[in-house]
Amino acid sequence: MGRVPDLVARALQGERRAIARLISLVEDGGEDLAEVMHELYPHTGRAYTIGITGAPGAGKSTLTERLVARIRADERSVGVLAIDPSSPFSGGALLGDRVRMQNHALDPDVFIRSMATRGHLGGLSLATPEAVRVLDAVGKEIIIIETVGVGQAEVEITDACDTTVVILNPGWGDAVQTAKAGLMEIADVFVVNKADRPGARDTVREIKQMLDMSDEEREPDIVQTVATKGEGFDDLWTAVGKHRAYQEEKGLLEARRHRRIEREIKEIVAERYRRRIESGGAETLAQLTGEVLDRRCNPYQAADRLIDQLTSESIT
Amino acid sequence: MGRVPDLVARALQGERRAIARLISLVEDGGEDLAEVMHELYPHTGRAYTIGITGAPGAGKSTLTERLVARIRADERSVGVLAIDPSSPFSGGALLGDRVRMQNHALDPDVFIRSMATRGHLGGLSLATPEAVRVLDAVGKEIIIIETVGVGQAEVEITDACDTTVVILNPGWGDAVQTAKAGLMEIADVFVVNKADRPGARDTVREIKQMLDMSDEEREPDIVQTVATKGEGFDDLWTAVGKHRAYQEEKGLLEARRHRRIEREIKEIVAERYRRRIESGGAETLAQLTGEVLDRRCNPYQAADRLIDQLTSESIT
Repeated sequence: MGRVPDLVARALQGERRAIARLISLVEDGGEDLAEVMHELYPHTGRAYTIGITGAPGAGKSTLTERLVARIRADERSVGVLAIDPSSPFSGGALLGDRVRMQNHALDPDVFIRSMATRGHLGGLSLATPEAVRVLDAVGKEIIIIETVGVGQAEVEITDACDTTVVILNPGWGDAVQTAKAGLMEIADVFVVNKADRPGARDTVREIKQMLDMSDEEREPDIVQTVATKGEGFDDLWTAVGKHRAYQEEKGLLEARRHRRIEREIKEIVAERYRRRIESGGAETLAQLTGEVLDRRCNPYQAADRLIDQLTSESIT
Repeated sequence: MGRVPDLVARALQGERRAIARLISLVEDGGEDLAEVMHELYPHTGRAYTIGITGAPGAGKSTLTERLVARIRADERSVGVLAIDPSSPFSGGALLGDRVRMQNHALDPDVFIRSMATRGHLGGLSLATPEAVRVLDAVGKEIIIIETVGVGQAEVEITDACDTTVVILNPGWGDAVQTAKAGLMEIADVFVVNKADRPGARDTVREIKQMLDMSDEEREPDIVQTVATKGEGFDDLWTAVGKHRAYQEEKGLLEARRHRRIEREIKEIVAERYRRRIESGGAETLAQLTGEVLDRRCNPYQAADRLIDQLTSESIT
């Protein structure tokens, strides 16, 4: 058996090191990726994905940890992908958080992984669905993707989940900032975390006011939690379940996944061309770049000439 | 004269509304873009770009505003592009900040603009250099790009400036978080803002320790500022100037701009293909997506088939 099929076979049997290795291959975005997907893909399609996002400091990591505990109480297996430089998964947070997470890490039905994508030309938007697929194939029923909802790529990733949970904190202006960051329109469930602080009710009211101005058919639930004390997680899990049921009834889940796959295929095509430039077109690119710097042509004309070359090469 | 050449001519004469309109065209990423760049590009190449980045709440906007004031004291014209949902330019911050910024907005030699890129398929990484080019062509000598340094695209954008300024605040762990976010390695100048708070010296020492572990030839300056009081901006402006002079002496600036243009051309090529899929390949894409959802093929195989179709179309 080849290296990749062997790795996939071991991952499908639940071997954690093999799973971790597959996700590393995805992060690297190397030549093996197409083969990895070829082997894995037939085993995917059963997981439900939940995106958790919010501003830095909103309590995403603690909330994720508590949600994992709630899901485990239902005896369902969980995968977590953390795409957040300030996440304890990536080693950036308080020791207490990290220890809590390590408890989950000992549970064979929980797989936690922070994502880095330096090697992957397609970046986070391509590496994340591939990593989700690894966890899906090895049997994780619920996959949580935690991202800091600030960057464009991060918002797109969360938007691409089956249910998107947006976290806010009590305090005037937070809802406005959330709206500005484009998070308001992607939320399927709102969480007001740190709800034991003053102003929680005002924040709930603010969110409701913003939702009243929207013309979406379904109004997202607003759940109050205190993640540090584990309060509100039955409500949160119920809200996620309600959104899932609603989508399944209305046939919306399939439409959502269709959009997600379309986006991914387009990204793969774009990456293939980027890679083709790097392998076959590096010399032409360097030469064209020189001409652009000398103002003999502009970047768009350079791109057109590069495309012409790539096209004629793929014919011969 | 056509619409775009007319708009460019008016922008080159300094008409603010025409400049704003050109940046809007860039944000939309529409069909006019290639023509806009064709008209503008010969007028570019004189501006120096400074990236300012750091975690939300680090004081980027106030620091940018004070730096603009310092640059204006030298009678040099300034353009500002704010790519940060929490920036006062985008309307998300305290009233005081917004008023201060409006003072600059009345100065004919300052042009401030927040960036949104919802329409642009290439996203921020393509729209930003194009917007920089607009400001460069109309004669802005210094262009500041302010981004929240959290998302991948945002880090890449800052990394693509001539000088990258990374802002930290006093407090243990901040430098570690900065390193995790990939900001440490892109910094040409470090700013410890809010330096009147306890722990500023510790943060400076922490940064120095991290720098000692790196093997870069040049060690970045570390500047302490109190942006709210306008303290430290002579030092900051001097540090930026030192970095600029160093790069020019060593021929590094040209190499840096070469890398930046290469990246941009690649992004344009990728976007051209994305666009080609949307115009000519939409039906095929929908059909392939259906097959992927049915597990009859995987996303990589679908992408290959789409590329085959795009290639054969460009022959005929």
